[in-house]
Amino acid sequence: MSDKINVGIVGATGYTGVELLRLLATHPNTKVTTVTSRSENGKIVSDHFPSLRGIYTLTFQSPEDAKLEECDVVFFATPNGVAMKEVPDLLAKGVRIIDLSADFRIHDITIWEKWYGMTHACPHLVSQAVYGLCEMNKQDIAKAHLIANPGCYPTCVSLPLLPLLKQSCLKEDMPLIADCKSGVSGAGRKTSIGSLLCEAGDNFKAYNISGHRHLPEIQQTINKLQKNIAENFVFVPHLTPMIRGMQATIYLHLKEGTHPEEILRSYYKDNPFIDIMESGSMPETRSVRGANICRISIQRAPQNNNVWIILSVIDNLVKGAAGQAVQNMNIMFGFNESMGLTNTPLLP
Amino acid sequence: MSDKINVGIVGATGYTGVELLRLLATHPNTKVTTVTSRSENGKIVSDHFPSLRGIYTLTFQSPEDAKLEECDVVFFATPNGVAMKEVPDLLAKGVRIIDLSADFRIHDITIWEKWYGMTHACPHLVSQAVYGLCEMNKQDIAKAHLIANPGCYPTCVSLPLLPLLKQSCLKEDMPLIADCKSGVSGAGRKTSIGSLLCEAGDNFKAYNISGHRHLPEIQQTINKLQKNIAENFVFVPHLTPMIRGMQATIYLHLKEGTHPEEILRSYYKDNPFIDIMESGSMPETRSVRGANICRISIQRAPQNNNVWIILSVIDNLVKGAAGQAVQNMNIMFGFNESMGLTNTPLLP
Amino acid sequence: MSDKINVGIVGATGYTGVELLRLLATHPNTKVTTVTSRSENGKIVSDHFPSLRGIYTLTFQSPEDAKLEECDVVFFATPNGVAMKEVPDLLAKGVRIIDLSADFRIHDITIWEKWYGMTHACPHLVSQAVYGLCEMNKQDIAKAHLIANPGCYPTCVSLPLLPLLKQSCLKEDMPLIADCKSGVSGAGRKTSIGSLLCEAGDNFKAYNISGHRHLPEIQQTINKLQKNIAENFVFVPHLTPMIRGMQATIYLHLKEGTHPEEILRSYYKDNPFIDIMESGSMPETRSVRGANICRISIQRAPQNNNVWIILSVIDNLVKGAAGQAVQNMNIMFGFNESMGLTNTPLLP
Amino acid sequence: MSDKINVGIVGATGYTGVELLRLLATHPNTKVTTVTSRSENGKIVSDHFPSLRGIYTLTFQSPEDAKLEECDVVFFATPNGVAMKEVPDLLAKGVRIIDLSADFRIHDITIWEKWYGMTHACPHLVSQAVYGLCEMNKQDIAKAHLIANPGCYPTCVSLPLLPLLKQSCLKEDMPLIADCKSGVSGAGRKTSIGSLLCEAGDNFKAYNISGHRHLPEIQQTINKLQKNIAENFVFVPHLTPMIRGMQATIYLHLKEGTHPEEILRSYYKDNPFIDIMESGSMPETRSVRGANICRISIQRAPQNNNVWIILSVIDNLVKGAAGQAVQNMNIMFGFNESMGLTNTPLLP
Repeated sequence: MSDKINVGIVGATGYTGVELLRLLATHPNTKVTTVTSRSENGKIVSDHFPSLRGIYTLTFQSPEDAKLEECDVVFFATPNGVAMKEVPDLLAKGVRIIDLSADFRIHDITIWEKWYGMTHACPHLVSQAVYGLCEMNKQDIAKAHLIANPGCYPTCVSLPLLPLLKQSCLKEDMPLIADCKSGVSGAGRKTSIGSLLCEAGDNFKAYNISGHRHLPEIQQTINKLQKNIAENFVFVPHLTPMIRGMQATIYLHLKEGTHPEEILRSYYKDNPFIDIMESGSMPETRSVRGANICRISIQRAPQNNNVWIILSVIDNLVKGAAGQAVQNMNIMFGFNESMGLTNTPLLP
Repeated sequence: MSDKINVGIVGATGYTGVELLRLLATHPNTKVTTVTSRSENGKIVSDHFPSLRGIYTLTFQSPEDAKLEECDVVFFATPNGVAMKEVPDLLAKGVRIIDLSADFRIHDITIWEKWYGMTHACPHLVSQAVYGLCEMNKQDIAKAHLIANPGCYPTCVSLPLLPLLKQSCLKEDMPLIADCKSGVSGAGRKTSIGSLLCEAGDNFKAYNISGHRHLPEIQQTINKLQKNIAENFVFVPHLTPMIRGMQATIYLHLKEGTHPEEILRSYYKDNPFIDIMESGSMPETRSVRGANICRISIQRAPQNNNVWIILSVIDNLVKGAAGQAVQNMNIMFGFNESMGLTNTPLLP
Repeated sequence: MSDKINVGIVGATGYTGVELLRLLATHPNTKVTTVTSRSENGKIVSDHFPSLRGIYTLTFQSPEDAKLEECDVVFFATPNGVAMKEVPDLLAKGVRIIDLSADFRIHDITIWEKWYGMTHACPHLVSQAVYGLCEMNKQDIAKAHLIANPGCYPTCVSLPLLPLLKQSCLKEDMPLIADCKSGVSGAGRKTSIGSLLCEAGDNFKAYNISGHRHLPEIQQTINKLQKNIAENFVFVPHLTPMIRGMQATIYLHLKEGTHPEEILRSYYKDNPFIDIMESGSMPETRSVRGANICRISIQRAPQNNNVWIILSVIDNLVKGAAGQAVQNMNIMFGFNESMGLTNTPLLP
Repeated sequence: MSDKINVGIVGATGYTGVELLRLLATHPNTKVTTVTSRSENGKIVSDHFPSLRGIYTLTFQSPEDAKLEECDVVFFATPNGVAMKEVPDLLAKGVRIIDLSADFRIHDITIWEKWYGMTHACPHLVSQAVYGLCEMNKQDIAKAHLIANPGCYPTCVSLPLLPLLKQSCLKEDMPLIADCKSGVSGAGRKTSIGSLLCEAGDNFKAYNISGHRHLPEIQQTINKLQKNIAENFVFVPHLTPMIRGMQATIYLHLKEGTHPEEILRSYYKDNPFIDIMESGSMPETRSVRGANICRISIQRAPQNNNVWIILSVIDNLVKGAAGQAVQNMNIMFGFNESMGLTNTPLLP
C-alpha cells in the first residue's frame, strides 16, 4: 500500500474523467485521492457516475479545497484554457502533470493562440512540456514533469504515419489525406444541440471542414518527422452515430521501393498497444472498445498502385485520451507501461 | 382511374421493395397490381411489412402465378442474377422494365462476369439497357424499355462529378478518391452476421477494400465523361451504424481556373432532386432521409489549395435505389419527373 | 389558392415545429405564412432545418414582428408557460389556436399549477379549451377555438383505454398499469445532458418515477370516462435509445364477459388513424414512424387469465404531437380528417 | 502457474463465448486450454473475434478433436439441446460442467420438453443439476458438478424478488407483473432477420407475448420460495434497440407492514454483485455495462400505495450469462467469488 502514488484528477465530471477513474480503479500502483469539480463540488462521485458505485467512495471537491499539491501526479481533464492557469503552481510544488486538454500541445504559441482563440497564460512552460504520444517520445516522457496528452485525431492519424515519416518515405509533391470518423463522445459530456441523440443519431456528416483544431497538432508532428509534407496534409473529420471509437482512413503516396508494412512492424515490435494487422485487414472500432490499443492496416489501393491506404482505429476515450494518459503516467513513474491497461476490449 | 398505369414489383420483400411500395402509395398515376415473392407467396403484403397496413391489400404471388405481362412497367427488386433471366420474356411482351439490381449496369460483359461471378444470361440486352442515372441520361431514359437503375454508391459519387467530368475539369495525373460511408440498409434485408445490430451497431469499419462491385460501375461512368481519369480512381466503402443514409467525401484535383460550384449550379439548375449547397456547407444524411434528393457541397481543402473536397449525401434507399427507380419511371412514361417524390425528409 | 387558410407557428425551432412544417408542406388547404422564434429571429427556416431546403422560403420572425393575427390558425409549439400568455390576445382577434404545450390540458387549475410549478396566466380560458384527443372529442373540436393538444403518453395510453372506460369495463379494485417507453425526441430539441447520444444511447432506464406531468392528464381522461379507476392508475415512463416512437404496455383487469377487442373495433371502425390489430399481434414503433397512426393490440396474459395486456404504439412526434395537431385543425376547419396525414410510415 | 485450473468452452463462437473469454482473460486462477466450434474448426480465435488479438493464441477445435476431458471445468455456450448430449460423458470423466444453455434449468422434464420442443437426452441428470442463481443457491453450487446457469430474464427478475418471496411477503391474490426490456445481444450471434440493425434499430416492440421460454424458469424459482404466487405471474419481454443491457420493471403487491428495501439490504449485505439503491433511484443499464452487477431499487407507486415498483438492471451477457457462469465457477472451486469479475462498468 505504502508504495502507491497519489493521484488527483481536475475536472473529473466529463468522459475523460470517468474513463481515468475506470482505468485507475484496477491500477495496482495508484490511489486516486482527489477529484475536483467546480460544478459538482460536494457531490459523491458515484452519484454522478453510477457505474462507479461500490468502486470509489470519493467526493468531488472544489479546486480551492482540494490539496492537489499532495498528489504525486495530477491529471487535467478540463476544457481548454484551465490547465495553463493552474499548472505552474502545482509544477513548482513538485507535482507531475498530465494535461488531457490542448493547452500544452502546440509549441508555436502564435499558432496555438490563433486556433484556440485565447492568450496563453504560461507560454514559458509550453517548451518544457513533452508531447505525450507515447510511441514517439518515450524517452522524453520518462523524464518529463509536464505532459501534453495528444488529441484523439492526432493519435489515430500520427501513429500509423510515424514510422513512415521518420524514414522520409512519403512523396513530397502529393496529397496526404486523413478522412477521419469519430464517435460522439469526442465532443465531451457537455450540453450541445449537435451531440443530442436526436441530432447525431442515425446521421452521418462531416464537420469543421474549414479547419479543426487538431489540424495544426498533426501538422506539427508531421513537420518534426519529415519536411515538406505537412503542407500537403488534408484533414476532414466526420461525426458517426456511435458513442466511442475513431477510424482514420489515410490516403498517401510513398516513394518507390517502400515496404510500409515491414517498416511499421519493425518500428512497433516492442510496443504492446500497437497492433499491425496484415495487409487487407479492415480493423473495426469495436475491436478496441474500452482498450488502449491502436490497430492499423496498410494496403495499396486496388486498381491504383500509386495510392496507399492506411486504416487506423482507436477508442477515442482510451488510446485517444485517458488510456494514453495512464500510459504516460506509467512511463513517467517507471511502472510497467501496460499497468492498468490490460483489459480486453468489450465486444459486442 | 382509367389512365393509371399498372405496376408490378418482382421480389418485393426486401428494403428496396418496401420503399417502392411506400413511394408508389402516393403516386397519382400508378396502381401497383402485382407483387411477387417466391418465399412469401400467399402472404399478405401488409403482414410482412406492418407499415403498409391500411395502405395496400395486395398479396405476394409466386412469379409463376403473377401476370406480370399485364403490367405496364415491372420493377425488379431482386438479388443480382434474377432479372437477366426473366426480363427478356417480359420485354418481348411489351412490358417496360426498371431493374434495381446490377444485371444490366455494366456494358462490358467480361467485366460484369468477373465482378459478379456469374455468366450473363442475356448479354444481347445489355447494350439496349439505358443506365438510369436520371440527371445524366434523361433523353435516353425517356425512350428506353429497359432501365439499369444505378447502385447507391455510383449515384452518390457520380452526381457531383458528372458536370465536372463532362467539361474535362479533372487533372489527369492526380488521384480521385471517394471515401464513402453507408448505412446498413445498403446490405439489404437478408440474414447476415455482419448486419446484425450487435455487429454493426456502435461500430465503424471499412469493408470490401480489395474491391467493391460498385467500383467498375463508377469507372464506367467516369470513362464516358472524361478520359484518363478512371485509372486514378480510388474507392473505399465504410459501414456506418445507422439504418439509412450515404455520404461520399470526394478528394479531387481540378485544372487551374475551374469554378466547380458554378459548373454544378449551372448543370443542375433545372433538376429538382439535386441541391447544390453553398461552399463550406456540410450536408447531413438525415437531411435527405426518406427523400429523393442528393445534396452536394464543394470546397477547397483548407491549407492545401490543390485539393478540392466534395461532400455528397443521399438516402441510399431513395435516390440510391427506389426513388431513382420511380424517377426513371416518371421520365419513361412522360409524367412529371417529381410525381410521387415530393415528400419532405424525415428529421429528426 | 385563394381558399387556403393561413397558418402560423409559434416557436417553430423544435421537433414539434419542424414536424408541423413537414406535415403541412403537403397539406392542400393550408399555407404556412408565419413562423416565429425569439432565438432564431431573422434566420431562414431551411438554414435551421436543412431537410426543408427547397420546400419553404420562410424566415423566422420575432413574435413582436410577426402578424400572427392575420393567420386563421396558430399552432403553439412552445415550452410550457408561453401559450397561456399569448393566446388570449390572439383568440380575441378571432384566431383559432392549437396549443401543443400543456398550458390548457388540465381543467383543474390547482392540479396544473402544482405539477407545472407556475401560476396560470389565464385560468378563465382553460375551461373553454377543448382537449384535442381527436377520437374522444371530435364534436367539440369541430366547434372549438382553442385546442389543448394532448401529450404523447396520454395519447398512447388513452386511445386503447377510451372505449373500455366509456363502457365501464374496468374492475374498480384492481391496478391499472401503464409501463411506457419513449424515444428521446420526446424530450425536445433542447440541450440536456440526459438527451446526449452518449448518455441516452445504448442505454435503457426508467425516469420521473416519482411522478411525470402526464400522470394527471391521463387521470383526468380516465375520470371523465369511468369513476373509481384513476386512483388505481400506475404510470412508469422509460427512456429508450431511439429517436422517435412510443410504446405503452398496459396491464388491466376487465369485468367478466368483456370482449375488449370487439369493443375497440366497434368504437374505432370509422377512425382512419386507429389500427386495431388482431389478438397476439405485437405492434412495433417503426411501423408508425412518421405517420399519424396508433396501432393497438389486446390479449389476455398467458397463464394468468385475470390480466389483460394492451400494446399501443405511436410516433410521439406525429400522433403524439404534430400529427394530432394537424388532425385537430382538419376537424376544426371542416377539412377531411386525413388531409395532409396520409403519408406511409418510413420502414426501415 | 501450476495451480491454475484448465478451462474448456464448447461453442465459443457466440456472444456468451466471447464474453467468457473476455472475463477469463484476467482471471488469475484459470487457463483456457480448449475452445471448440464445429463451424469454425481450425480458425484462430482472434481472427474470429478481433478484440482478442494479442490476448489469446487459441484455435477452435472440433468437439471430436478437443480433449475436453482434460479440463477441470467446461462451459457450454451452445444452443439449447447440445449440452444434454455431451455432458453425461464429461461428467463421468470427472469434469465439472457449467451449462449456459437451458438444458438443465427446468426440473420438471414434461414442462421442459413442452417449452423447448425436444425430447430431453438425459433426464436423470436434471435433478443432479444445481440451478446456478448464485445468490440463491450458493451452498449447493459449492458442491455441484453440474450447474444450470440461469437465463438472463430469470436472473434480472428473480434477484430482486428472492428475499421477498423467501419471507412470503407477496400478496397471494394479486398480479405479479414483470415488464422486461432486453438489448438485442440476448438473441445471440446468429443470423436472424429480427436482429438486423435495420429491423431492431430505432424500434421498440414486445415479443413472444404468447409465452417466452424464460417464463417457466421464473415460475419454478417463485414456486420454490413462496406458494400460490407463480400463478399470478405475468411476463412480457420487449426488444430494445441497444446491444447489451436488460431492465425489469416489476409491479407487485406486498403484505401490509412489509419493508422491502430493508429486507433486500439485509439479505444481500454480503453479496458483492447486488447493489440495492436507495428508494427513488432509477438504475440505468449502462451503469452495469460489461460488469457482473445487478442494481435494484424498490419504491411505492406514486398515487397508488397498493402497488410497489421494482427496477432491476443487469448486463444480459455478464450477470445474465457469462459473468454469472464465472461466479459459479469461483464458488465451485473455492475461489474468491469476485475473482475475474472486478472490472468497472464501461460508461459511456
